[in-house]
Amino acid sequence: MTGTALIAGQGALPRQLAHSMSLAGQSFVVAEMEGFPCDIPGAAPLRFRIERLAPFLDHLAGEGVTRVVFAGSLRRPRIDPELIDPRTATLVPRLLAAFQQGDDTLLREVVAIFEEWDFSVVGVKDISPDLVPGAGVLAGEVSDADRRDATRAAEIVAAIGPMDIGQGAVVAQGLCLAIESLPGTDAMLGFVADHAAHLRPDPKGGRGVFYKAPKPGQDMRMDLPTLGPETVARAAKAGLAGIAWEAGGVILLDRAAMIAEAEKAGLFLWAREP
Amino acid sequence: MTGTALIAGQGALPRQLAHSMSLAGQSFVVAEMEGFPCDIPGAAPLRFRIERLAPFLDHLAGEGVTRVVFAGSLRRPRIDPELIDPRTATLVPRLLAAFQQGDDTLLREVVAIFEEWDFSVVGVKDISPDLVPGAGVLAGEVSDADRRDATRAAEIVAAIGPMDIGQGAVVAQGLCLAIESLPGTDAMLGFVADHAAHLRPDPKGGRGVFYKAPKPGQDMRMDLPTLGPETVARAAKAGLAGIAWEAGGVILLDRAAMIAEAEKAGLFLWAREP
Repeated sequence: MTGTALIAGQGALPRQLAHSMSLAGQSFVVAEMEGFPCDIPGAAPLRFRIERLAPFLDHLAGEGVTRVVFAGSLRRPRIDPELIDPRTATLVPRLLAAFQQGDDTLLREVVAIFEEWDFSVVGVKDISPDLVPGAGVLAGEVSDADRRDATRAAEIVAAIGPMDIGQGAVVAQGLCLAIESLPGTDAMLGFVADHAAHLRPDPKGGRGVFYKAPKPGQDMRMDLPTLGPETVARAAKAGLAGIAWEAGGVILLDRAAMIAEAEKAGLFLWAREP
Repeated sequence: MTGTALIAGQGALPRQLAHSMSLAGQSFVVAEMEGFPCDIPGAAPLRFRIERLAPFLDHLAGEGVTRVVFAGSLRRPRIDPELIDPRTATLVPRLLAAFQQGDDTLLREVVAIFEEWDFSVVGVKDISPDLVPGAGVLAGEVSDADRRDATRAAEIVAAIGPMDIGQGAVVAQGLCLAIESLPGTDAMLGFVADHAAHLRPDPKGGRGVFYKAPKPGQDMRMDLPTLGPETVARAAKAGLAGIAWEAGGVILLDRAAMIAEAEKAGLFLWAREP
């Protein structure tokens, strides 16, 4: 009785999730897409191709898998028409149409296909609740000025959400120092480090907050934003007071290391009630 | 008969506007706020303080000024209560309240006060129409991909407009590479230069468009966004295909130099119908 399949993309999250499940004594199998090897020590992943998705899903069901979790990043693969088997051929038009759309549409279609095979698709939070903390301050102290900056940053992230631009923003003393876009969180925090030193009007006022949240209406089982120890180090380098995020909507990669890093640098970490 | 008062802030725009009016044989007087010297060769500016705004407005009227144009950037000055005369004292509470709000509110209040003195407040476009070009391509060629990128960038700028974040965005192949925030246009284009080289999915696709527009609902007589030759050089360094902006809503500082710079670098310049 295998129970859970971990569909593992790239990055640190699949490894953490496998570790959590092993610690909890859960039985699971790891699967990776050909060309996108996951990085899970000791795992012997099943390997699948989009062109043979139907037989792969049959195989998972035959192994006793009833529950599926997706973790880690994947990019759109190339599809080799010669490899497509007849049953997968009925799925390919749906996937190709979704490939043309944004990530959200594609992920919704993938979830729908897995559910048609009677798998229960769950989120990281369902497998390992401690990776997605609920409301609370995890490190440091949040001042009133920081709370105001977090509120404004949350409004900005919500406003840009429908535009599919990014999921983060930096606000200091009410002023927007940066908005996350395609280059990502690290690039944005580097930008703040480069430019923001002289832009805070009050030298004694709030040093600024980096806020992160999932997109409004996002399927919380798929592709949640992540924060990790490296993010904390970069936020410190940008001179910020701390990091806030939507409680229950963001994955922490290595919470203990994040807290240690935040306490060392004097930053707060705050899972904020949305 | 003096006619027009140019209330000159900092930057290149007041100089250009004075030059335009001189060429056109218009009679005008220049005024600058104490502590914020303008840079207009040959001008002997009147100098005013917020604390003595009422007598200054009387003086302008006495000089035969009927029309006022604001140009160049100003920051909020410190106010010395000891210098406030009795008549200006009735204006100060309105200005101080507006100081606490965004720039838009403050500018609206300033315009209102000038209009109460029966001055006609006009925009740069009214004084020198060639500084604010109407729709048309001024340099280079705009491809269909560029048009799509400009459309998406315009949507993004419109969406962030009400949040008072910035007035520009960069989009390439439909993807948002950057959004303008407090550090400004130059910083944003530097960010794109640093990060975007490998982020365009199709190496033969559109190289991206920097789009600029006034805020939705902005008073077009005040604080229009500006573009200049330096912007063109930075957009070229960021590897973009060109610059588009809302026709009639953006000031070009030195249009001839911008066109020369764009043609040298192979960029388009496009005043886009909103």
